[in-house]
Amino acid sequence: MKKFMNRAETLVAESLAGFVAAHERLVVFGADSRFVRRRNLRPDKVALISGGGAGHEPMHVGFVGEGMLDAACTGHVFTSPTPDQIIAAIRETDRGEGCLLIVKNYDGDVMNFEMAAELAAEHRIATVIVRDDVNPSGSKRSQGRRGVAGTLVFEKLLGAAAEARWRLDDLSALGEDLNDRIRTVGVSLSGVTVPETERETFVLNEDEMEMGVGIHGEPGRARLKFATADEIVETMLKAILKDLEPKRSDKLLLFINGFGGTPVSELYLAYNSTRARLQSLGLTVARSLVGTYVTSLGMAGLSITVAGLEERELSLWDAPVNTAALRWGG
Amino acid sequence: MKKFMNRAETLVAESLAGFVAAHERLVVFGADSRFVRRRNLRPDKVALISGGGAGHEPMHVGFVGEGMLDAACTGHVFTSPTPDQIIAAIRETDRGEGCLLIVKNYDGDVMNFEMAAELAAEHRIATVIVRDDVNPSGSKRSQGRRGVAGTLVFEKLLGAAAEARWRLDDLSALGEDLNDRIRTVGVSLSGVTVPETERETFVLNEDEMEMGVGIHGEPGRARLKFATADEIVETMLKAILKDLEPKRSDKLLLFINGFGGTPVSELYLAYNSTRARLQSLGLTVARSLVGTYVTSLGMAGLSITVAGLEERELSLWDAPVNTAALRWGG
Repeated sequence: MKKFMNRAETLVAESLAGFVAAHERLVVFGADSRFVRRRNLRPDKVALISGGGAGHEPMHVGFVGEGMLDAACTGHVFTSPTPDQIIAAIRETDRGEGCLLIVKNYDGDVMNFEMAAELAAEHRIATVIVRDDVNPSGSKRSQGRRGVAGTLVFEKLLGAAAEARWRLDDLSALGEDLNDRIRTVGVSLSGVTVPETERETFVLNEDEMEMGVGIHGEPGRARLKFATADEIVETMLKAILKDLEPKRSDKLLLFINGFGGTPVSELYLAYNSTRARLQSLGLTVARSLVGTYVTSLGMAGLSITVAGLEERELSLWDAPVNTAALRWGG
Repeated sequence: MKKFMNRAETLVAESLAGFVAAHERLVVFGADSRFVRRRNLRPDKVALISGGGAGHEPMHVGFVGEGMLDAACTGHVFTSPTPDQIIAAIRETDRGEGCLLIVKNYDGDVMNFEMAAELAAEHRIATVIVRDDVNPSGSKRSQGRRGVAGTLVFEKLLGAAAEARWRLDDLSALGEDLNDRIRTVGVSLSGVTVPETERETFVLNEDEMEMGVGIHGEPGRARLKFATADEIVETMLKAILKDLEPKRSDKLLLFINGFGGTPVSELYLAYNSTRARLQSLGLTVARSLVGTYVTSLGMAGLSITVAGLEERELSLWDAPVNTAALRWGG
């Protein structure tokens, strides 16, 4: 395993320090460097806080800024942030309108964010649990659907709504609603080596791929023979469309996400194939995003996220965003 | 070799089709899909055209848009675009103020862009050859310094200047000037497999790295023992600073570029280490960029680019840019 690092114990802290320094106009460290927050907090909006284990960069710190998150808490690699970190973020970013916690559905994350919300009971807090994975069967890390790349879509839409001064109850309702309308499936071409343990999570032969993977190198639903991009996309879309059941009148957001080790040219090729297949089914791709946003260290692979959005959500998607990783409009 | 593709012969065309479809608000294909251009060409500005082999995405197509390139011509993987492609781009984008061709210093690229300029002699054309690599010794592909990740800096600064309606001669002079002030050095942790040949360019052991690599998987200057991030950065910066000789009063742009297979968290860690080292030498990092912009397929590794910029160039760097890969201001 070759990684650019000094010591496994300090790699998350060093990387975050680099992130904050490189984007000093957008973000600062919160108290005791326990989280990253927007440099300029707004007085009369709900604070949006997310977080999770390290190893998924640029999520979540790359989504802190105008039109998206107010703060992000990062744990060790693939390990939830502690309740302390989350409480510190709540205290520093809540300006009186309450906090919305956006939490991916993993047992550790859900437990620590819940504990933080209980311990910070003097604040008004609502929680959205993101469950966008098509795989409903859970894993060692989670019960039910996992939160994966669709988390970006939750954070963009809720971030825009919070920026437009939606109230906490309305944001919470939107978050619940989105769980029925966003689905993701991932495929991996390689396992993942976690720096602290130097153990590879699973090993694939040269002619194999792992279908239905999450973002922690956990095994997926099936090990399949490697195939052409068109065939892989067909398998993936079948799983999504069976679950999402979009109508021909729906406006779809199509998001192709790289897991960290996949060149952007391959992501665009996958996008091309996915879009063509959706169109051949009479479906309309109204918005698109292609890039490396929600990663699993340096895993080779990608995920496809499809969201069925109404006019209201399309406007939230189009609203200006100014973060390190996502930036448009304004 | 596992790649998301259908056939090696069509992968560049399919990927470009996906790119154009995903960014249809920004770009369109030029005539016969031989190049990618800005959707909205401006009437009274010099047209900026670049290009090169595929395999370096998001460069150059990701830099087409307001404040950067007017058109980009893509060849096969690691192969120059043909003169035909370049001539088509010149004819379609020159609105009377002439064209500036931005060409990385590889024999194939230089030859084909020169030939295009000769065959399109009815247009006013100037050419900037980018030579930012610290390695002055050339390779099989080039004589003298290669054009590598610093190409992004050329295209951003010249793009902003063209947007500000600088004339062709002044743009050409700025380009020449930048060649003395931008230096890059790359390190690789893995070779590269070119899809057409399925041959790996070089093979590294688990404890080795290749120092001084370019962006085609060509071997570098030295094969070294793998080391900590701080040690690698020290070796790389030494090569840059010996060549660039910045003064303490200089304002530096520091750009950490991933080669395609390196997680963004490692790029930020390398940024943190590089910035700290520059500061310990009394040097000032005034602007920063960290990300995967100039790649060598899925190569694991990164490059460090340092540019010594004056107030004029800092303003050009800060000017709004709206492309698929680089976007700020505006």
